[in-house]
Amino acid sequence: MQKYKLTIAYDGTSYGGWQIQPNAPSIQALIQDALQIALRAPISVTGSGRTDAGVHALGQTAHFSFEGPCDLKRLQASLSGLLPPDIRIRQIEKVPDDFHARYSAKGKIYHYHLHLEQPPSPFKRLYSTPIHHPVDLDLLKQAAALFVGTQDFTSFANEAHLSAAARNPIRTLKRLDLVAEPGGICLEFEGNGFLYKMVRNIVGTLLEVSSGKRALEEIPALFLAKDRRLAGKTAPPQGLFLIHVFY
Amino acid sequence: MQKYKLTIAYDGTSYGGWQIQPNAPSIQALIQDALQIALRAPISVTGSGRTDAGVHALGQTAHFSFEGPCDLKRLQASLSGLLPPDIRIRQIEKVPDDFHARYSAKGKIYHYHLHLEQPPSPFKRLYSTPIHHPVDLDLLKQAAALFVGTQDFTSFANEAHLSAAARNPIRTLKRLDLVAEPGGICLEFEGNGFLYKMVRNIVGTLLEVSSGKRALEEIPALFLAKDRRLAGKTAPPQGLFLIHVFY
Repeated sequence: MQKYKLTIAYDGTSYGGWQIQPNAPSIQALIQDALQIALRAPISVTGSGRTDAGVHALGQTAHFSFEGPCDLKRLQASLSGLLPPDIRIRQIEKVPDDFHARYSAKGKIYHYHLHLEQPPSPFKRLYSTPIHHPVDLDLLKQAAALFVGTQDFTSFANEAHLSAAARNPIRTLKRLDLVAEPGGICLEFEGNGFLYKMVRNIVGTLLEVSSGKRALEEIPALFLAKDRRLAGKTAPPQGLFLIHVFY
Repeated sequence: MQKYKLTIAYDGTSYGGWQIQPNAPSIQALIQDALQIALRAPISVTGSGRTDAGVHALGQTAHFSFEGPCDLKRLQASLSGLLPPDIRIRQIEKVPDDFHARYSAKGKIYHYHLHLEQPPSPFKRLYSTPIHHPVDLDLLKQAAALFVGTQDFTSFANEAHLSAAARNPIRTLKRLDLVAEPGGICLEFEGNGFLYKMVRNIVGTLLEVSSGKRALEEIPALFLAKDRRLAGKTAPPQGLFLIHVFY
């Protein structure tokens, strides 16, 4: 068996998320089906992690194994014809046998786009979260800095569908940069791993600070409390992009 | 009666086009309905011109008349709540009685986005036309220059739903600039007026030249022939944006 790594871009608008699920189309299912048609073999696709409904990716990764000859260029062309235009395979590579899209991942970059124009542009509604209050960028930067480092992110993680024993809530957020872009701000997260809904929960908390609903000083206490109910609301999915997975 | 001018941005993906039509939702109908609810009066909305299904606008304009008090800020807020997020009213202004969104227009700017990345980005599929052949930018610029000026554009106009007598096929294209943008090229058209599907027919012809299907030298002959059947295919709608209407 040869292992292959896929690098995938998708617009998550029309899907129930990355992961195969009973009542909604998923990106994983469509890619798996396309591979099975292209390779005429049963294929199982494992992603680097789930993305939720409405969340996008420029650099999601996944692996699959396949025994037999496989022309990578031809396979990419076949997948391009078999998959809808909102899912594109950017790269297919051979990887060593011990490669695992999820367990070999050393880190990830996520971007979250905030959109400040009034009225909000109709072209950003699916790819950015509109903010209706004036944003104090200095305050937002100070708040963002409090999330960087190695900490227990329990207060910013939704209940994962994993046993409690398997969960380690300590993560290292290497950077959380605020980058101005036309009409808005991009929040760039780079970390060694992310808990379930962690990025969106941090964004929700940052927005409460920037709108004056919550004091900057509360953030260290939120970390100590280890209680999801105390932190901010989960920010909407459409601003979130999985940009890159490091191996 | 007071006349009002609307400036409108919309994502045309989900609509049958600007114009009210029997079997598809239209932007004109939604705006007219929203105005009627907001102003509690029968309102008729006249646009600067139609845009087809899938064509977008950043600066479509329209006018309507209304008798009675009208707080423009409050009306804009009401419309923002009544309209779906893919249609946004950017501005409402009082205009003189003789203003007409269509007949007072002195010119328009359209942009047409071409997208050259391989594989095409899933995020551009609704807002740009993917090009699969290598583009010779110099050749494309030379071809574009042949469309600029005051000419009979009959070969680049689809049959309009107007009587032949009312049609004057002479138009002045002031500029057709090629502007590089990330992953692609934007074709910027500025003219005193545009015939039905003229921008998309010019783009289709330019793409035939750039792919080597048609010689540059054929373009002057196409103008002389005054025959739509001889020019290029109509380029897809999703790359086209109505940017601005001059008055």
